[in-house]
Amino acid sequence: MPAPGENLKINGERLWDSLMDMARIGPGVAGGNNRQTLTDEDGEGRALFRKWCEAAGCEMGLDQMGNMFATRPGTDPDALPVFVGSHLDTQPTGGKYDGVLGVLGGLEIVRTLNDLGIRTKRPIVVINWTNEEGTRYAPPMLASGVFAGVHAQDWAYGLTDAEGKRFGDELERIGWRGEEEVGARRMHAYFELHIEQGPILEAEECDIGVVTHGQGLRWIECRIRGKESHTGSTPMRMRRNAGRGLAQITELVHEVAMKHQPNAVGAIGHVDVYPNSRNIIPGRVVCTIDFRSHVLETLEGMVAEVREKAPALCEALGCEIEMEIVGSFDPPEFHHGCVRAVRDAAERLGYSHMDIVSGAGHDACWINMVAPAAMVMCPCVDGLSHNEAEEITPEWAARGCDVLCHAVVESAELLD
Amino acid sequence: MPAPGENLKINGERLWDSLMDMARIGPGVAGGNNRQTLTDEDGEGRALFRKWCEAAGCEMGLDQMGNMFATRPGTDPDALPVFVGSHLDTQPTGGKYDGVLGVLGGLEIVRTLNDLGIRTKRPIVVINWTNEEGTRYAPPMLASGVFAGVHAQDWAYGLTDAEGKRFGDELERIGWRGEEEVGARRMHAYFELHIEQGPILEAEECDIGVVTHGQGLRWIECRIRGKESHTGSTPMRMRRNAGRGLAQITELVHEVAMKHQPNAVGAIGHVDVYPNSRNIIPGRVVCTIDFRSHVLETLEGMVAEVREKAPALCEALGCEIEMEIVGSFDPPEFHHGCVRAVRDAAERLGYSHMDIVSGAGHDACWINMVAPAAMVMCPCVDGLSHNEAEEITPEWAARGCDVLCHAVVESAELLD
Repeated sequence: MPAPGENLKINGERLWDSLMDMARIGPGVAGGNNRQTLTDEDGEGRALFRKWCEAAGCEMGLDQMGNMFATRPGTDPDALPVFVGSHLDTQPTGGKYDGVLGVLGGLEIVRTLNDLGIRTKRPIVVINWTNEEGTRYAPPMLASGVFAGVHAQDWAYGLTDAEGKRFGDELERIGWRGEEEVGARRMHAYFELHIEQGPILEAEECDIGVVTHGQGLRWIECRIRGKESHTGSTPMRMRRNAGRGLAQITELVHEVAMKHQPNAVGAIGHVDVYPNSRNIIPGRVVCTIDFRSHVLETLEGMVAEVREKAPALCEALGCEIEMEIVGSFDPPEFHHGCVRAVRDAAERLGYSHMDIVSGAGHDACWINMVAPAAMVMCPCVDGLSHNEAEEITPEWAARGCDVLCHAVVESAELLD
Repeated sequence: MPAPGENLKINGERLWDSLMDMARIGPGVAGGNNRQTLTDEDGEGRALFRKWCEAAGCEMGLDQMGNMFATRPGTDPDALPVFVGSHLDTQPTGGKYDGVLGVLGGLEIVRTLNDLGIRTKRPIVVINWTNEEGTRYAPPMLASGVFAGVHAQDWAYGLTDAEGKRFGDELERIGWRGEEEVGARRMHAYFELHIEQGPILEAEECDIGVVTHGQGLRWIECRIRGKESHTGSTPMRMRRNAGRGLAQITELVHEVAMKHQPNAVGAIGHVDVYPNSRNIIPGRVVCTIDFRSHVLETLEGMVAEVREKAPALCEALGCEIEMEIVGSFDPPEFHHGCVRAVRDAAERLGYSHMDIVSGAGHDACWINMVAPAAMVMCPCVDGLSHNEAEEITPEWAARGCDVLCHAVVESAELLD
């Protein structure tokens, strides 16, 4: 099948204008967005997206998880479609691009193909996945997870937010629960454009991240128990300071991750010290280790090393430690053919590119389990995301979308 | 002046019964006490103490800070009195002995002298100091501090509790604000019996701690600033992890204190990590270092070493640190003559004893600034204090009170 010509480019100005128009819905307090899943604002954002898709000649579909599907027909009604998308929901103090770029980038492909009168054999379907962020209803990537069979739909419906409102009820309330069975659609391929949410591409002055893998994750909750005692009247040799256990495990986690560079990361982000008083030696610390790698053996090796060494460190301090895996997923490896299509597109367009591993989770990580999938990343300023100050340049957005467009069109089989 | 005979002993059973009677006022939820300063329960405890003192023939005095003075007359109306006491207020989850033993121990001396018809040249005054604990109204040792001229009375009156109630108003409300000028009384000497609140005496199987010094203190608040970033998508070499700053400073504090054994202690008890999320590298940590020593040079040397080394540790992590002294007092050295009176008393009574440094602050530390002072300590189980499970044995209490009695009577000049 023919690849698109190097002159096929999306309309960067229109893409940017759409991003800015969508950002007017659920504005944040500091220039970003608060358009959390299943709020009235989420409903408004969905309605705007539907209006745009219909204006572009798409047929709309909606499944029972609220996932939206906008189909541009292909010439072969029997051919499996190529899917492209991401999510329109945001963090409570989110940015204007995380997720939104992937959805509106898909729409921009349809608009561009319409402008140029380009036909493809396979239909192209632009998706908005429900609740990727997971802040109102944990876990993240909820509806793509149900689509991929990772979560049960009934369980998802029963999730409650901080006010006790059920996911299923709120989906109904905003009027975006469809009839279509979740996961029934078969895909020829799935592509997702997303901002990097990390600092690598910008630092490398690189336009395009060709995402080869996602990172697997292990969260290890550590409960360190020492003895609460007075900072003044307890001699040094009689202390059982759980805070020193935290200190030594913090450094252990760093050392363990550093043995596996550049393929692994590790840190402790969550720390609770008890009783957390200036004049009491910590009797208890609860913290969570976050290890990630795109290599399964590395991930498991890091966990094993900490499980082996942490108890000895604590014992030497007169402390005890319990460790429990409280979060876990294995590293996804994206489909070789789809990844190659992304890399070839960047090459053809003359954009600088590098292979990259996605540090965060994305809908594509779940869809990769049920369809050939790949991701395109563009840089973001200072690696900042999940923050109202999240920023990208119009050029980064346009180049990312160009590459997405080429990969999608090639996969959908361009007709001469 | 003659020392008391070795047969002079207080009534241990009566002392214990009084401790148990007082503990019925403001009971805790787990066998201890919640009799916080200037509550109705504090008022009840004061009334019971007054009733007991009056029954023992004492004349009551009350100053403008609510400090209570119960005087057993001496034979010389012009002689400066010997003072003995501590505090009846407790922590919110406090024990039955912290402070209370020192007040009721003083009362037991009066009762014993009455029983035995013993007269002293100098009056003996039993004191209950207001608000030693400092949990409802920080700082601790408030009213003895005003007595010693460390704090201004107006400032103390203006302190507010968590509900915004003023110290002065609450003192008035419970009916225990007196007319007497605070700090007007001159003392020949001051003695205080207290539970150790540390594990040394019990571990050494020693009856009596002869307190030679208090510990000086420096609290250094550290504000470590790194960069908040995603645990998954931030490469190890691009991290500025404030949590590692905490880890390395925790260990630095330990190492610095260990260089000065057995004369110093150091730890971090207070730790706040921001934003404290499992998948975000800490961008900021606020923690407080607690250094103590009874040697001023040691205390200042430890602070200087941390001030020198912590910034370099943080810089190597790409972090910054600000350090600020937020609490400070120099080590008190108790009066040699009073300390000797305590040591001689223990020797005379045949009780095992050792010189000890008080790790915690006590009213005696402030009074030591305006009068010759010393402290007697008795063991407490497992070093536990500021805890409802705080425990001592009746024998420990009785032996501590015997030593207190001998020191007070010798100082008050026993008449043959």
